[in-house]
Amino acid sequence: MKFLHTADWHIGRRLHGYDLSAEQADALRKLEKTAIDEKVDAIVIAGDIYDRGMPSEDSVRMVNGMLKKLNLEDNFPLLAISGNHDSAERLSTGSEWFEETSFYLHTKIEQAIEPIEMSGVQFFLMPYFEIGEARRFLEDETLKSADQCVRRIVSLMKEHFKKGCRHVLVGHFFAVGSLKTDSETQSEVGGLDAVGTDELDCFDYVALGHLHQHHASRSERVKYSGSLLKYSVSETSDQKGVYIVDTDSETIDYRPLSPLNDVRVVKGRFEDLIKPENYRQIPNDDYVAVELEDRIPIIDVMNRLKKCYPRIIELRRANGRVNREKSGLKNFEKLSEMDLFKMFYKDAVGDDPDEEQCEMMERALQTVKNGGKIQ
Amino acid sequence: MKFLHTADWHIGRRLHGYDLSAEQADALRKLEKTAIDEKVDAIVIAGDIYDRGMPSEDSVRMVNGMLKKLNLEDNFPLLAISGNHDSAERLSTGSEWFEETSFYLHTKIEQAIEPIEMSGVQFFLMPYFEIGEARRFLEDETLKSADQCVRRIVSLMKEHFKKGCRHVLVGHFFAVGSLKTDSETQSEVGGLDAVGTDELDCFDYVALGHLHQHHASRSERVKYSGSLLKYSVSETSDQKGVYIVDTDSETIDYRPLSPLNDVRVVKGRFEDLIKPENYRQIPNDDYVAVELEDRIPIIDVMNRLKKCYPRIIELRRANGRVNREKSGLKNFEKLSEMDLFKMFYKDAVGDDPDEEQCEMMERALQTVKNGGKIQ
Repeated sequence: MKFLHTADWHIGRRLHGYDLSAEQADALRKLEKTAIDEKVDAIVIAGDIYDRGMPSEDSVRMVNGMLKKLNLEDNFPLLAISGNHDSAERLSTGSEWFEETSFYLHTKIEQAIEPIEMSGVQFFLMPYFEIGEARRFLEDETLKSADQCVRRIVSLMKEHFKKGCRHVLVGHFFAVGSLKTDSETQSEVGGLDAVGTDELDCFDYVALGHLHQHHASRSERVKYSGSLLKYSVSETSDQKGVYIVDTDSETIDYRPLSPLNDVRVVKGRFEDLIKPENYRQIPNDDYVAVELEDRIPIIDVMNRLKKCYPRIIELRRANGRVNREKSGLKNFEKLSEMDLFKMFYKDAVGDDPDEEQCEMMERALQTVKNGGKIQ
Repeated sequence: MKFLHTADWHIGRRLHGYDLSAEQADALRKLEKTAIDEKVDAIVIAGDIYDRGMPSEDSVRMVNGMLKKLNLEDNFPLLAISGNHDSAERLSTGSEWFEETSFYLHTKIEQAIEPIEMSGVQFFLMPYFEIGEARRFLEDETLKSADQCVRRIVSLMKEHFKKGCRHVLVGHFFAVGSLKTDSETQSEVGGLDAVGTDELDCFDYVALGHLHQHHASRSERVKYSGSLLKYSVSETSDQKGVYIVDTDSETIDYRPLSPLNDVRVVKGRFEDLIKPENYRQIPNDDYVAVELEDRIPIIDVMNRLKKCYPRIIELRRANGRVNREKSGLKNFEKLSEMDLFKMFYKDAVGDDPDEEQCEMMERALQTVKNGGKIQ
């Protein structure tokens, strides 16, 4: 059989204050089109459908609308789990009814063990879970790590393995060996820690959610689909899309989804960045992180840049850090106040302070040392 | 056919800070039992299933669990609408799938017109709506009142009336002639205003939600089921329950649901209320509004009463107002400060102030008149 693997829709997510609902709706439409064009037999959604446990009404409308389209209109069987960003309880609403039309939505750890069989493939849908839930379910208070829990759950799954069937695990966790990006770092604090991919060898394919880069796992058959869109500046160089997995031909293909508006980094000197021949190459509605290579202060820099790049999501100095590293000095406390001032000035302005400036600084330092009394 | 009519569950509602989830779960179980015992063919839920548009996960669990039980386990067809306390968008989640198992949940005004036919009865499910929604749906910006809107919608419904069928309207609005209680007063501000019951004559039965008293409508066939529980002190004298409507025998019977813990008013003088032979008659877990008939101040009154009535939801003086009315004086501004003081003292303490107190007051008044300088 052939299925589409997606995850981390994060519907409702904002990008540095910008509403992404137009981009999300567009990406979902393209995802639907890909499923239709590829004639897949099912769609796997590996968690983090919503960005928040309490999604807005607009987010609920978008998700309900798309799930209804995919399942009731296009007649795709859906195999979905809740991620750490979803409220398992809220997301589960209606799930008992969904199964009538082959929409399987698992939100509780105890639902992971029993496979969904479809065209010779057994799908095990393991939602994101906290250690405490796994302890209660496995009746073992000694369980300490996600790795231990998954190992135990997988051994229970194996008891249901049917010979002659392919076996697919759908999960939402951090698989060891994965590359991390900024936007999911926070989620991991206090959540599931790393799970070794060796214990997942028994599966023909592992469809994961959680990490936002589709190449986050180096394993051949343990894959993150990546997020629906670029959700942080650290993801600008990613290509977003979905995996098309064919269990008969044993092929795993990545199908990019081009975004309505891209998220990109623009790097250069201010005077170059504001040249029309440069900024006109960037679509007006793209989200832009600007890296300035200048070392001198620029008056009203944000407003002037916004005239060329209306949707700036970040502004930083490309060389700020380089300079400091070049100086090679770490024992700042050994320097005099005057030396520190000169260093700072050069770092910020790009030039040495002149004599008058040094004299002013000297007077100011004296005043401070005299307890604020001006000499 | 025979159906049960309920409404205004308000799952998640608190009573003066007390969590009512145990009482709500108990009442829902009794409602289910009544439906089973009465062998009804369907259950009508006329809105305000949740108390809030953003219900807690516990509330979601309770509602999802009960709807699943009623529809998927007990196999009752469900006919439900959203009320003004529900978020129509959130509540609608899954509704397209629910219809497979005869669970009809209407949350949009445009769903009102097409009837659900069941055993010779046409059910029109009209969710709560704002005037703006009705204007858009009816394409008439001149609509000003709920009454006008309902009249127009009912005329559209009539076009779908089938001869030989009974016609039942399920709605969530304020029908004229109804008695109001405190707990839904706020909901009406800015919401739907009154709807005349005369335009509902074409229906064999109108199953309403919104008002919390089951006798709120005096009409024979336009009925409020009342809320699941007593949700305010003004509802203490109500009997809560459900209607059992039989369209063949044309009978409408009220079936009370006895609460796990009652909400009641206890009235009397403090010394009587704290007598064991009195307070021991009230179950410890009942929610009690205390009306004190005393006119004198009582030290630490709340704590002492709570030892006898652990769940006090309100404490008020029964005679406070009576006294003031007795005085018959409305032109307070014509009285001297001293007379006002004497009146106030008697009103609060129950006795005239003594000579020393009057002298102290006189001195205080002089001090104030002298701009705060003590004589």
